[in-house]
Amino acid sequence: MTQLQNDTFLRALLREPVAYTPVWMMRQAGRYLPEYRATRAKAGSFMDLCKNPELACEVTLQPLDRYPLDAAILFSDILTVPDAMGLGLYFSEGEGPHFERPVRTAADVEQLPIPDPEGELKYVMDAVSTIRGALNGRVPLIGFSGSPWTLATYMVEGGGSKNFSKIKAMMFDQPALLHRLLEKVAASVTSYLNAQVARGAQATMIFDTWGGSLAPANYREFSLAYMQRVVEGLTREAEGRKVPVILFTKNGGQWLGDMAKTGCDALGVDWTTDLADARRMVADRVALQGNMDPCTLYASPERIREEVARVLASYGPGSGHVFNLGHGITPDVDPERPAAMIAAVHELSRAYHA
Amino acid sequence: MTQLQNDTFLRALLREPVAYTPVWMMRQAGRYLPEYRATRAKAGSFMDLCKNPELACEVTLQPLDRYPLDAAILFSDILTVPDAMGLGLYFSEGEGPHFERPVRTAADVEQLPIPDPEGELKYVMDAVSTIRGALNGRVPLIGFSGSPWTLATYMVEGGGSKNFSKIKAMMFDQPALLHRLLEKVAASVTSYLNAQVARGAQATMIFDTWGGSLAPANYREFSLAYMQRVVEGLTREAEGRKVPVILFTKNGGQWLGDMAKTGCDALGVDWTTDLADARRMVADRVALQGNMDPCTLYASPERIREEVARVLASYGPGSGHVFNLGHGITPDVDPERPAAMIAAVHELSRAYHA
Repeated sequence: MTQLQNDTFLRALLREPVAYTPVWMMRQAGRYLPEYRATRAKAGSFMDLCKNPELACEVTLQPLDRYPLDAAILFSDILTVPDAMGLGLYFSEGEGPHFERPVRTAADVEQLPIPDPEGELKYVMDAVSTIRGALNGRVPLIGFSGSPWTLATYMVEGGGSKNFSKIKAMMFDQPALLHRLLEKVAASVTSYLNAQVARGAQATMIFDTWGGSLAPANYREFSLAYMQRVVEGLTREAEGRKVPVILFTKNGGQWLGDMAKTGCDALGVDWTTDLADARRMVADRVALQGNMDPCTLYASPERIREEVARVLASYGPGSGHVFNLGHGITPDVDPERPAAMIAAVHELSRAYHA
Repeated sequence: MTQLQNDTFLRALLREPVAYTPVWMMRQAGRYLPEYRATRAKAGSFMDLCKNPELACEVTLQPLDRYPLDAAILFSDILTVPDAMGLGLYFSEGEGPHFERPVRTAADVEQLPIPDPEGELKYVMDAVSTIRGALNGRVPLIGFSGSPWTLATYMVEGGGSKNFSKIKAMMFDQPALLHRLLEKVAASVTSYLNAQVARGAQATMIFDTWGGSLAPANYREFSLAYMQRVVEGLTREAEGRKVPVILFTKNGGQWLGDMAKTGCDALGVDWTTDLADARRMVADRVALQGNMDPCTLYASPERIREEVARVLASYGPGSGHVFNLGHGITPDVDPERPAAMIAAVHELSRAYHA
C-alpha cells in the first residue's frame, strides 16, 4: 500500500499531536457540487451511482480535488445492508427510501440472512478498493455504516418515518423480537465494516441518525448496546496502523458520556451541544468530531470564519478534535462557502496545537 | 367566576401539595378522537374550526368528556399570531402551513403590526371565554402561544422547514434584523397571552417547537431571551390566583437549567431526558411537565402502565410534576390507550404524594 501523505485525521482521532485540526464534511460528496450532479446524471439513479465502483470513486474524490480536506469518505448509502438482507430497497421521487418487504413478524426476522460483504455487497467493497487506489495516499479513507437501531427503523417502518410508530410498538410490546432483529443487523454491520477495512478503509464511522428519537433507557438498550457490540467486533488494526472508529448519534448530546464508554475512539457531536461541555462529558477519553451548524454555510465567508473560530475555541487546546459540520452539508450551499470554512479551520487551528 | 372544582394541575405547577399527579396531553383535542374528526368535518377546514368559538369549545371539551383529565387547553393553532400580523396563513393538503407573504427584508419587518388580540385575534379570545364558561369550573384552562423563535421560523421560511436555511442565514448575517423581528413577535405574543388570561385562561404555555434546532449560544440569544421577555411581561395573577407559565423547548433537554432561570413556573420536558436528570438540572426551582414517549400509546395497556410507573418513579416523590406526553398525541392512536395511561397516572402517583 502507498504511504499515507496526510495522516492528521487519523492522529487527531487517536488524540496524538497534530500541527492543525483536520477537517472533512459529512456528505462532502453531494448535491451541492455541480460535478457531483453531473456524475449522478451520467449514472442514472442514486443507487446506480452507489453500485458503480468507478463512479462512486469519482464522486468520492470530487470534494478532495476542490478543497484541501483531510479525509475522504466512501460514497455509498446507509441502506445497502438491509437491501442486501433481501428487503428490496427503492427510492421514490421526493419521498426518500422505501423497502418492498419491511420486517414486521418473527418469521420476517428469522428468515433474514447475514449478508456476505463480498457477495451481495461486493459493489461496496469494490468501491472501497477503487477509491483507495485512486487516493494514492493523499488522505485516509473512512468506511461507514448505519447503526443497528437506525437500520432497523427503516427495516420495520418500511422507509423513513416521522414518529417511528411501528418499531416503537415492537420495542414496547415485543422487545425480544426487536432484540433478535438488532442482533442480526449488528452482526451484518460488523462484517460489513470489517470487510471495508479489509479492502482499505482506514477509519470507520457508525451513523446513528435516529437514536435521538429514543428515551434514555431505550437508547441504551436498543441503540447504544448494539453499537457497542459492533465496536467490540471491529478490526482495529490494519496495515500496521490503528483503525479508529467514530460513533455519531444525531441529537445524542445528552448521552456522550455513555457513548464514550463503548470502546470507540471518537464521537460525532451535532451543533446543539457545546464542544466544551462535550469534552467535559467524555472526560477526554475519546476524540470529538464536529460540530458547526450546517446552516452556517449559508452565511458570508466572514461570518463563517467567526463561527469556525468559535467552534475551535469551544474545543480548546490540544489534539482530539476533528472539525466537521454537525450534520451533512445541505444541497443548496454555494460551493465557495465550504472553501472559506476549510481555510479558516486550517489557519486558525494552528494556535491550538502550538 | 365559578369555583374551580379541580385545581390539582395549578397546584402541581406551583409545587404545592397535591393528592396525586395531574395529567393532560398535548394535542388532546385532536385527530385520534372520532368525535374531533366529526366536528372538524362539520367545520370545514382546520382554520375554520379554529375561527369558530363554539366549535373550538366543542373540541376542547371532547377529551374531558372521555377521560378524567386535569386540565383543558384552548383549541387553536400556533400560527394565529403571524396570520394576524398580515402574513396570510393557508394550509395546503399534506404539506402543512404556509404564509403568502413571508418576512425577508428590513421593510417586511418594519411594516409588521403588533396585532390587537381583541381585534384580528378576537376569535381566539371568544373561544377562551366560551370554553371557560362551558368548563364551568371542572378543570383549569390553559392558554398558549408559539415562542417568538418558533413563530419567526415560520414567518421567515414561509412555512415549515427542514433546515431553517433562510432564518439561520438571517441569524448569521443580519442578526440585528432578526432581533427586531423577534422583538415584535415577542411583544405580540405577550399581549396575545395576556388577553387570553384576561378572558379566563388560568395557566399559559409557550411552545418552542424549533428552539432545539439551534446551537446553544444561538438558542440563548434568539430563542430563550425572547421567551424570557414574554415571561417578564405576562400577567401572573388573575381572579385572586397565580397564573403559572410553562415553557417547552422540544429537544431542549440540555438547556433546562438555563430555562429554569427565566422566571417561569414550569418546564415541559420531552422524552429524551430522564426526569430525574431534569429535576437535578433545574434544582427544584420549577415544576416539570412530561415526559412519556408519545409512541408508548401504540403499546398494550399493560405496557403503558409500566411506562407510566417508570416516568412517575423518575420524577420521584413530592409535588412539582404534571404528567404529560413528551410531545403531542399522534393521530393514529387508539383512544382506549390514553384511558389506560390516565388511569395509571392517577392510581400509581398517589404513593408519591403520601
